[in-house]
Amino acid sequence: MTIRALVFDVFGTCVDWRRSVAREVAAVLPGVDATAFATAWRAEYDPAMARIRDGGRGYVPLDDLHRENLHKVAADFGVTAPDTLSAAWERLDPWPDVVAGLTTLKTHHIIAPCSNGSIALMTRLAKHAGLPWDCILGAEIAQDYKPKPAVYLASCAALRLSPHEVMMVAAHNDDLHAARRAGLATGFVPRLAEHGPGQTSDLTAETDWDVIARDFTDLARRVTPEAP
Amino acid sequence: MTIRALVFDVFGTCVDWRRSVAREVAAVLPGVDATAFATAWRAEYDPAMARIRDGGRGYVPLDDLHRENLHKVAADFGVTAPDTLSAAWERLDPWPDVVAGLTTLKTHHIIAPCSNGSIALMTRLAKHAGLPWDCILGAEIAQDYKPKPAVYLASCAALRLSPHEVMMVAAHNDDLHAARRAGLATGFVPRLAEHGPGQTSDLTAETDWDVIARDFTDLARRVTPEAP
Repeated sequence: MTIRALVFDVFGTCVDWRRSVAREVAAVLPGVDATAFATAWRAEYDPAMARIRDGGRGYVPLDDLHRENLHKVAADFGVTAPDTLSAAWERLDPWPDVVAGLTTLKTHHIIAPCSNGSIALMTRLAKHAGLPWDCILGAEIAQDYKPKPAVYLASCAALRLSPHEVMMVAAHNDDLHAARRAGLATGFVPRLAEHGPGQTSDLTAETDWDVIARDFTDLARRVTPEAP
Repeated sequence: MTIRALVFDVFGTCVDWRRSVAREVAAVLPGVDATAFATAWRAEYDPAMARIRDGGRGYVPLDDLHRENLHKVAADFGVTAPDTLSAAWERLDPWPDVVAGLTTLKTHHIIAPCSNGSIALMTRLAKHAGLPWDCILGAEIAQDYKPKPAVYLASCAALRLSPHEVMMVAAHNDDLHAARRAGLATGFVPRLAEHGPGQTSDLTAETDWDVIARDFTDLARRVTPEAP
């Protein structure tokens, strides 16, 4: 297995969206249960993409879906939220091991997000969080949303690599199942705090992913070529 | 004028393609006039893109055009070149001021190539040359070639910025004329050695570009916001 590039899920795998969004909500909407608001906002994410995946709506960048969902959730909470709160998703903090692990991986591999976030969102988030990507891949270049195979395949094609030369890294088994079906190598890193203390999903690897690592430091150690 | 992103021409503006390609040619094709070969190879670049700009051929990444042109030029020189020599364009050295200037610019702005090179080519070149891009924009996301306005406009749209918030930086007046027509701000940096000692083109700014800088260090000083 010669891996030339690693592509990453971002929300949950690289960054702690739940606590970061809650912090931004708390600053703008005092009196609201900010963690509940963040969780409800995130819960609208998959249904909003589903219509696009199914062809019921053309590709719309996640920035716009986040804004639409913000107003839906704000109404449910009985408040009015400013459009600018959508930029909360550009200010998510990385898990503690991420920047060091990516920096090590970057010395021998191409590293890029393969996220459902847009180029604009991923670019601004990378600046906030210090994620040292080589380029931005994912939904926007495919004009579709994961777990559709087009997103993984377009990301490999943009690098002019075969899927078996690219490893998808995620904290979510579903993402890796889809990547493996598209022919990519797979790396699992658990994020046991993504959904808070009561998390029940993705606590362990569901199958024999090509690499199962404790965190990004461990991942970097496992995929870095041996010294000659 | 509030500039939020700077996008850059790469071949000639950021990197010295002529001497770098000649070095790679000399290593693979001994006995050939490597500088003449590099210049002839580069001369095929614009005609190859012209057919695509005119709609006579669908979008083909520059990597493939470089390979096609390589074999054409090799035949003209009476030699056979390996396909792998095309990767010479991924190993171009930066002008001495580029990495420091980009690193400074990156602290306050989004920086990205807006080149005719593909995502794959720009990604690998950035790793070789140490260009600290935030993301890769340009021809591939527009599926067309500069100086078509779509390439500049798609690059701004991918950042969710208006053209007037984005500065195109180039050593080529033609590139800046096209960017200005598309509504972008413009920055000129002369590269008097791009074409060798006898260079006659682009020795000076042809008009009142928004910024005219000596080099990327000077550019960074001119566009960096004043301390409050």
